[in-house]
Amino acid sequence: MSEAINIKEKLSQFSTHWDPHIIAEMDNYDIKLTKLLGDFVFHAHADEDEMFLVIKGRFRMDYEDHQAWLEEGEMVVVPKGVVHKPHSPEECHVLMIEKQGLINTGEADDDRRVEKAKKL
Amino acid sequence: MSEAINIKEKLSQFSTHWDPHIIAEMDNYDIKLTKLLGDFVFHAHADEDEMFLVIKGRFRMDYEDHQAWLEEGEMVVVPKGVVHKPHSPEECHVLMIEKQGLINTGEADDDRRVEKAKKL
Repeated sequence: MSEAINIKEKLSQFSTHWDPHIIAEMDNYDIKLTKLLGDFVFHAHADEDEMFLVIKGRFRMDYEDHQAWLEEGEMVVVPKGVVHKPHSPEECHVLMIEKQGLINTGEADDDRRVEKAKKL
Repeated sequence: MSEAINIKEKLSQFSTHWDPHIIAEMDNYDIKLTKLLGDFVFHAHADEDEMFLVIKGRFRMDYEDHQAWLEEGEMVVVPKGVVHKPHSPEECHVLMIEKQGLINTGEADDDRRVEKAKKL
């Protein structure tokens, strides 16, 4: 666990979208990579904040009352309970940090729900 | 808390070394930026893992029994209890995620100890 993890090399290992992959753990959090393309589903995580950092490309985070673009090198923490939906017209690569056990789609009913992310 | 945070813009707001600045919070963790130059002090954090992601430059993490370089775009999680020391011959910019209350120098006696990081 103390060797360097190359983020771009890890990203080269999968090509699926909305499919988070765990690259490291920190306490009871997972550090994940995911590739976005298209429109996700509005959802919230009642008890967990969620961090997104754009590694490549850009995406728009939609909230109930506004939208905010995230460019490469930008990050956001979506506070617990806040309804949000990533929207990415072109492919975007994102690093996420989330408490272990968090479900990507929250309480929403969506077939992209991932119960247990793969480890890279 | 739901607007984009530009990491390079935040880094442009300070020039000190070994001086972590908080740019966001996620649950009870701080997301910090720091600039490394030179040699830090061997220390450990008994109860907290610590994540380092290189935004610009490179640095070497020294452990008791080996050393590992981290290049731009690489990250590492130093597990709780593991003695480590960042070493950076040239300036390096790093994003860190640490549990709130963590002291940068751990239990080590060093005048670069920061009790409470500034918020940017």
